[in-house]
Amino acid sequence: MDRRSFLKSAGVAAGATAASATLATPAISQGNMELKLVTTWPKNFPGLGTGAQRFADKVTAATDGRITVKLFGAGELVPPFESFDAVQSGTADMYHGAEYYWQGKHPAFAFFAAVPMGLTAPEQNAWVQWGGGQELWDELSAQFNIKPLQCGNTGVQMGGWFRNEINTVEDLRGLKFRMPGLGGEALRQLGVSVINLPGGEIFQALQSGAIDGTEWVGPWNDLAFGFYKITKYYYYPGFHEPGPTLGVGINKGVWDGLSASDQAIISSAARDENDNMYAEFMAKNGQALSTLINEHGVELKRFSDEIFDAFGAASEEVVAAVADHDDLGKRIYDSYIKARKDLAGWTDISEQAYSLGRDRIIGKQ
Amino acid sequence: MDRRSFLKSAGVAAGATAASATLATPAISQGNMELKLVTTWPKNFPGLGTGAQRFADKVTAATDGRITVKLFGAGELVPPFESFDAVQSGTADMYHGAEYYWQGKHPAFAFFAAVPMGLTAPEQNAWVQWGGGQELWDELSAQFNIKPLQCGNTGVQMGGWFRNEINTVEDLRGLKFRMPGLGGEALRQLGVSVINLPGGEIFQALQSGAIDGTEWVGPWNDLAFGFYKITKYYYYPGFHEPGPTLGVGINKGVWDGLSASDQAIISSAARDENDNMYAEFMAKNGQALSTLINEHGVELKRFSDEIFDAFGAASEEVVAAVADHDDLGKRIYDSYIKARKDLAGWTDISEQAYSLGRDRIIGKQ
Repeated sequence: MDRRSFLKSAGVAAGATAASATLATPAISQGNMELKLVTTWPKNFPGLGTGAQRFADKVTAATDGRITVKLFGAGELVPPFESFDAVQSGTADMYHGAEYYWQGKHPAFAFFAAVPMGLTAPEQNAWVQWGGGQELWDELSAQFNIKPLQCGNTGVQMGGWFRNEINTVEDLRGLKFRMPGLGGEALRQLGVSVINLPGGEIFQALQSGAIDGTEWVGPWNDLAFGFYKITKYYYYPGFHEPGPTLGVGINKGVWDGLSASDQAIISSAARDENDNMYAEFMAKNGQALSTLINEHGVELKRFSDEIFDAFGAASEEVVAAVADHDDLGKRIYDSYIKARKDLAGWTDISEQAYSLGRDRIIGKQ
Repeated sequence: MDRRSFLKSAGVAAGATAASATLATPAISQGNMELKLVTTWPKNFPGLGTGAQRFADKVTAATDGRITVKLFGAGELVPPFESFDAVQSGTADMYHGAEYYWQGKHPAFAFFAAVPMGLTAPEQNAWVQWGGGQELWDELSAQFNIKPLQCGNTGVQMGGWFRNEINTVEDLRGLKFRMPGLGGEALRQLGVSVINLPGGEIFQALQSGAIDGTEWVGPWNDLAFGFYKITKYYYYPGFHEPGPTLGVGINKGVWDGLSASDQAIISSAARDENDNMYAEFMAKNGQALSTLINEHGVELKRFSDEIFDAFGAASEEVVAAVADHDDLGKRIYDSYIKARKDLAGWTDISEQAYSLGRDRIIGKQ
C-alpha cells in the first residue's frame, strides 16, 4: 500500500490555495457585526445541522445581536467541502463541519474528528481539553489561517447496514460498501470494495444494488434515511468513528480581531453545543433503535470478535500512516496514541465496568 | 426499613425556611453587577472548586466585567451545607454544589446529582438536556426560589478503599465504612456500619481505625488525600455515584431579573463547564491511577459479581423509596427510570461494546 497516496486522496481535494494570512472583513454596521457561518450539512439536518444552528443562535443571543451569526447550509454560499477554503480565504468567517473532511489538507485533521479504533466522545474531550490536543490542533489549523473549537459529537457510530449476514472476515471480501475516510481505507485492506457517496445518494445506491451495504451515523439519523426498507441487518459496534467531534473553524484574522469577551462568548457557546449535541444523539439514538427493531423488524447483530479484531488490525496500520506525513503529524499521532492508552485504562474501570455491572441489575442481560 | 425517616435524614437538615419568593438584590454600581457565588467546596479544591472558579471567571470574561461573579469557598460566607438556604433567601446569588446535598429539602434532588445504579455522565446529560429532566428540575427547584443549571461532572466514582479484601457479601457485615447519601443507605441494608464524615476528617479516621474504609471521588482526588498510605485495596466499579453532576443554583429573583442575553451567557458558561470538568476528571483520573498502582503499590481490585449485585439490589430499593415522597418525587423517579432503560440500551451497543472490543486491539486484556 502506498500510504502517502491514499492519505492525499482520502479527504477533500488537496489542490487548495496555500495558507494565507488573509484578514477577513466581517460585515459591520452601527457597531453590529455579522459573521457568516458555512456548514457541511443541509440546513437543519437533524443533530448536525440543528446543532450548528443552535451554536449560531447562542452567540447571537449572548451578544444581544451585537454579533449575528448567519448560517448557510451546505451549498448555499459555497459547496460543503469548500467550507474550509472559504474560511481560510475570508469568503466566510466560520465553518461547522467534521475535521476529517480536511484530510486532503493535512491527514492529521482526522484526529480532531475521529479515527478508527480511536477515542470515544468523553475521551476525545479529555485529550483535546486537558491532554494537549487543543494546542496541537491550534498549531495545525493556524497553518491554514484558522482557529478551531470543538462544537458537537455524535457518539459512537453504528457498524452499518448489510443485505446479508457477515459471519466471517471472508464474507467481507468483494462486498460493495459505503464508508468514507480512514475507516473505508481499513475496510479496503480486508478486500471490501469501498465506495464513497454523499448522504443524499446512499438510499438509491442501496436500492439499485450499486452497493451491498452502508454505514451512516447511528439509529436516529439512519432511521430518517430509511435504510431499513432495503437491508435488515444492522451491525454494531462501529469501529471507524467512535466519537466524531464536530468542529467550528474561525478565520484567524476575524478571531484575533475580536475582543477577549467576544472570544469568551464564542468559546463557551461552542463548548455548550459540544455537550448538548452529544447528549441529543445519546437521547435520540436509544429511542430510534427501539423503533427500528420493534416497528421495522430490523435485526440487531454484533460483529464477531474475529471480524472486529480484523477491523482493528487494519485500522491500526492505516492510522499509524499519518505519523509518516511530517513532524507535526507525528507529534499529533504520538500524543493521541499515548492519551488513548491512559484514557482506555480509566474507561475500563469506570464507565465500562460500571455499565456492565448495571446491565445485570436492570435486567439487560 | 422506614423509608421516610431515612430519606428525611439522608441529606442536610430539613428544618429549613419554607420557599419564599424573596427578591434578592445583587450589588449594582455604575451598571456593573456583582453576583455572590457560594460553594460547598474549599476554594480551589481540585476539580470541584477549580471548576466552580472557572465557571465564575467565564461569566466575568464573557460580560467584560459587567457581571462579576465573586466566589466564596466553603465557610467563607456561609457554612457549605447552608449554601442552598443562602441562595433561596438571597444572602447569596448562586451556589455551586452537588444536588444530593439538598435531599433533606426534597429527596428527589438526588436524581439531579447521582443515585446508586443510576445514569453515567453522558446519560445524565441526555436525560436532563433532552429527556425532560431539566423541566422537572426547574419545577422542583422553583419550590425553593431557585433556577438550577448543570455545571460539571466527576464521572463514575471508585468503589473505595478497604483495609482488607472483600471477597463475599458476608465480608461487608460490621465494616465501619464512610459513604454518604443513598449509597450509604444501600450499604447499611447489607449490614455495613455506615459513617458520614466530611472530606477533611476521613484520613485521620482511617488512620485511627475509627473507620475500616472509605470512598471519596476517584484516583485524582483520592491520591491527594493519601488514603494509599493506610489502605492498599482500591475497589471498582463504584455503584453509588455513577455520574455525579455538579449544579449551579441561582436565586430565581436574580435570574428572572437578568436580560435574556445575560441568561444566555450564564447558561452557556455553566454548560461549557459541565463539559470541561468531566473532561478534566477523565484526563487526570487515568494518570493518577497509574501513579497509585506503580508508585504507591496500590492493589486495584474488582468487586465480584455477587457483591456488585448485592449493592444493586439494595440500591434499587433505596432509590425507589423516593417515589413515595410526593407526586413530584414520583414523576421524577418515573422519568429517570424510563430514561435509564432506554439509555442503558444504547450505551450497551455503543460506548460499552466499542470499548470492550478496542481493549483487545490495544492490548488491554
